[in-house]
Amino acid sequence: MKPFRHEIRVPFYDIDLMRVVWHGHYVKYFEEARCAFFESLGMSYLDMEKAGFLLPVVSLEIKYIRPAVFRQRIGVDVAPDPDFENLLKLRYTVVDIETGEKLCKGVTRQAAVDRETRSLRFLLPGPFVRRLREAIR
Amino acid sequence: MKPFRHEIRVPFYDIDLMRVVWHGHYVKYFEEARCAFFESLGMSYLDMEKAGFLLPVVSLEIKYIRPAVFRQRIGVDVAPDPDFENLLKLRYTVVDIETGEKLCKGVTRQAAVDRETRSLRFLLPGPFVRRLREAIR
Amino acid sequence: MKPFRHEIRVPFYDIDLMRVVWHGHYVKYFEEARCAFFESLGMSYLDMEKAGFLLPVVSLEIKYIRPAVFRQRIGVDVAPDPDFENLLKLRYTVVDIETGEKLCKGVTRQAAVDRETRSLRFLLPGPFVRRLREAIR
Amino acid sequence: MKPFRHEIRVPFYDIDLMRVVWHGHYVKYFEEARCAFFESLGMSYLDMEKAGFLLPVVSLEIKYIRPAVFRQRIGVDVAPDPDFENLLKLRYTVVDIETGEKLCKGVTRQAAVDRETRSLRFLLPGPFVRRLREAIR
Repeated sequence: MKPFRHEIRVPFYDIDLMRVVWHGHYVKYFEEARCAFFESLGMSYLDMEKAGFLLPVVSLEIKYIRPAVFRQRIGVDVAPDPDFENLLKLRYTVVDIETGEKLCKGVTRQAAVDRETRSLRFLLPGPFVRRLREAIR
Repeated sequence: MKPFRHEIRVPFYDIDLMRVVWHGHYVKYFEEARCAFFESLGMSYLDMEKAGFLLPVVSLEIKYIRPAVFRQRIGVDVAPDPDFENLLKLRYTVVDIETGEKLCKGVTRQAAVDRETRSLRFLLPGPFVRRLREAIR
Repeated sequence: MKPFRHEIRVPFYDIDLMRVVWHGHYVKYFEEARCAFFESLGMSYLDMEKAGFLLPVVSLEIKYIRPAVFRQRIGVDVAPDPDFENLLKLRYTVVDIETGEKLCKGVTRQAAVDRETRSLRFLLPGPFVRRLREAIR
Repeated sequence: MKPFRHEIRVPFYDIDLMRVVWHGHYVKYFEEARCAFFESLGMSYLDMEKAGFLLPVVSLEIKYIRPAVFRQRIGVDVAPDPDFENLLKLRYTVVDIETGEKLCKGVTRQAAVDRETRSLRFLLPGPFVRRLREAIR
């Protein structure tokens, strides 16, 4: 499977005192890419809400390789891990769009919880899993 | 009435490429001060929700005088305008705590809306108005 | 002059407890549109730095008409005020891209300051003014 | 060593559509706690800059246990890992101040880089290391 790519132009307000993207903003970039990826599968956050479940992030890892700078055009590549019965694991790679140089790598894990009770669901909803599987193949 | 003061230590992640607080972050500082002020009157956002109304900001004005810098200790003074029948108008002054120097001034206007319907209420809820009036006197 | 339009898809992380865009985030939307507008004139923030000046925002006004919601496609229209000798005044209108409905209006004023000394320049740099004038015509 | 504790009152603008703190904001909470911890050792970010080095975050891990909510009083406990020759590793635990309940855990690794060249320094600056060692003992 080719990863899903989401493109971002680094905005001024994300740049910090060291003249690079503040390290916490990559969490936003991952989320934007993840939302766009889910939408490309026909499953937006609002669809999930309607289907009665939420997918909160339960863990996050980021490795910073090279800082992004103001106005840089970056691509956030997202790919689901094949094994996702009860936790959805997504891998992210942030690259410079022109040079392909890697800037940052990340992983998020998400658990399905019931929208009302917030209690854990042991399996991700079937239709969502099917679409993810199709995306991986 | 002496204005209500909320103190903030400028965090690293609020500093921009010009090495000063990014101008949009003052909206957060105003909100923090406003929430603390409402709480000091015994009326938090969550109390308002329970009472069935919300107070969205309908207009905002900021004049920037002197930029705040990293780790600066600033005070955000909030004072309600005496005339607040259907719109609540609050004035803000941001100062350096040590020197008293003015950094920024602002105004927000908030309208009461019904929590469920989001339709405008023409009057602010009575108990809230009484506490504000007492705060002004 | 037709205003310059910058398009934004409202991200998840901009949505607040009231399920709409938090009012402070429009400052980011204005800035993104302004940066894109300046770039369309061949004058990015980094070009300004190199030319030895900065354009900090000295005042900001926002009127909120209708809240934007998650995943809404919005357009931020920017247009400079014809009169800009010593302060650059830009007007913003945020609209729903599909319906054209107005969501929010704003104004920013920016002063030119010397990059090193941070002292006020009484006139905006000539080439920048010329490009703006051409954009207005 | 008792960990250093930094206290935060969860602000309105950090709450998301699920009515809890948006997961990315914990990166800010970690940073606030880290800055306060460094300052308690007499080494602020600005001191580091003057001493010619920077300490960018090179990796970040977060495990989310229980979501923080609006106005909750939370404590962010920071403790350095004893082994920090070339990478500084800090561990964070976010707790509810009243109940002591764990909300979130995290780790950051920071590398010392030369301020001007941004090239890696293989050792952290001596005085900084000494103060950290004293803090650990």
